[in-house]
Amino acid sequence: MDVQLKTFLADNPVFRCYLFYTAILTLKMMFMSLLTIRQRVMNNSFVSEEDAMYLKGMVSRTNEQVERVRRGHRNDMENIYLFFIIGFAYIWTDPSPFWANLLFLVFTVTRIVHTCVYTVVIMPQPIRGRAWLIGFLITGYMAVRTLLHFC
Amino acid sequence: MDVQLKTFLADNPVFRCYLFYTAILTLKMMFMSLLTIRQRVMNNSFVSEEDAMYLKGMVSRTNEQVERVRRGHRNDMENIYLFFIIGFAYIWTDPSPFWANLLFLVFTVTRIVHTCVYTVVIMPQPIRGRAWLIGFLITGYMAVRTLLHFC
Amino acid sequence: MDVQLKTFLADNPVFRCYLFYTAILTLKMMFMSLLTIRQRVMNNSFVSEEDAMYLKGMVSRTNEQVERVRRGHRNDMENIYLFFIIGFAYIWTDPSPFWANLLFLVFTVTRIVHTCVYTVVIMPQPIRGRAWLIGFLITGYMAVRTLLHFC
Repeated sequence: MDVQLKTFLADNPVFRCYLFYTAILTLKMMFMSLLTIRQRVMNNSFVSEEDAMYLKGMVSRTNEQVERVRRGHRNDMENIYLFFIIGFAYIWTDPSPFWANLLFLVFTVTRIVHTCVYTVVIMPQPIRGRAWLIGFLITGYMAVRTLLHFC
Repeated sequence: MDVQLKTFLADNPVFRCYLFYTAILTLKMMFMSLLTIRQRVMNNSFVSEEDAMYLKGMVSRTNEQVERVRRGHRNDMENIYLFFIIGFAYIWTDPSPFWANLLFLVFTVTRIVHTCVYTVVIMPQPIRGRAWLIGFLITGYMAVRTLLHFC
Repeated sequence: MDVQLKTFLADNPVFRCYLFYTAILTLKMMFMSLLTIRQRVMNNSFVSEEDAMYLKGMVSRTNEQVERVRRGHRNDMENIYLFFIIGFAYIWTDPSPFWANLLFLVFTVTRIVHTCVYTVVIMPQPIRGRAWLIGFLITGYMAVRTLLHFC
């Protein structure tokens, strides 16, 4: 890649930090796909006929353990994808590297907590609700900052 | 952030405009999460047992008012996320600032209309279908322009 | 757009290549929306009352041909959106243009195969599973490379 481009963007600490947490959250979301497959196999609940036929299993779309992982995965799509986009936009509002890094870090931790208490070791509320809320507020803060900066 | 980087990207009017509408659409999608929570509480329809237990409510996954908001949210994920990506790609095809701004603005308005007539004040078709179609055509236009530019 | 910005980013072969495949995958995902509409009309299975009323059809949420397309579309959202994000991050790890182009190309082909064998001409497993797996491994490779580069 062009040397000057690397200097301008990839050496910017906020951008580097964003790319780092993006990679972690990508791996976290990929884990949801593996967890779904695991639950489908363990609970013998396949969603399409050709899958059930190939693995000599049953077609079922209402298994709660499978659906729980799928809800967690969907919640990730609703929240983490939004973070990817608005986190990128937020970089251009010129935040301090320390503050931006803190927001990205806390968001990442809350989403990992969300997954653990929802799909790995099910914990009573309000743990999951609070993990979601903190991530939601961080997303909202970055959106408002971006809006005010570019309006 | 590096002064020169700011000059190159953040002062580009098309990119600034993209970031502005990205922030608005992010807030719009966050609103869907709040609307889902509101419908779950008002209709006493919680999706996971630990939620129902915490809020002393019922588990239900078929409440139409909840499902309607969730369908609207999913439709946003199908359409707005795609806009975020292809809108960013489209910037690099060097569109005129006026035209790009118009496309971004109209897309944003149609998605807000879509949400209003689908989940806030339910309106008969084809209003929602047309709002969706306009946004869909804008996305398609930007995708084809990007494809032709970089092929 | 600023001449120097174009020089730095849009002339970078890996970035151009990324934008090209992004446009193709965007059009591929838009095709899923059209396929859903087609299946809803052909199977007379509309999801909202106002749609059924407008098109003089029935409300149904369990038609397998419609649900199959929706599952394919959701699988795209789980996998292609993640590719868009991590593919962008991966560009900054300074990959060779040949190798990056190959990864982007193979990912795009596997996702098109996935759609074809899942929703257009239904094929027995493990074709779909393998197409999904190759794309999944490419996403994982790019995530790990990005993680190692920016940690």
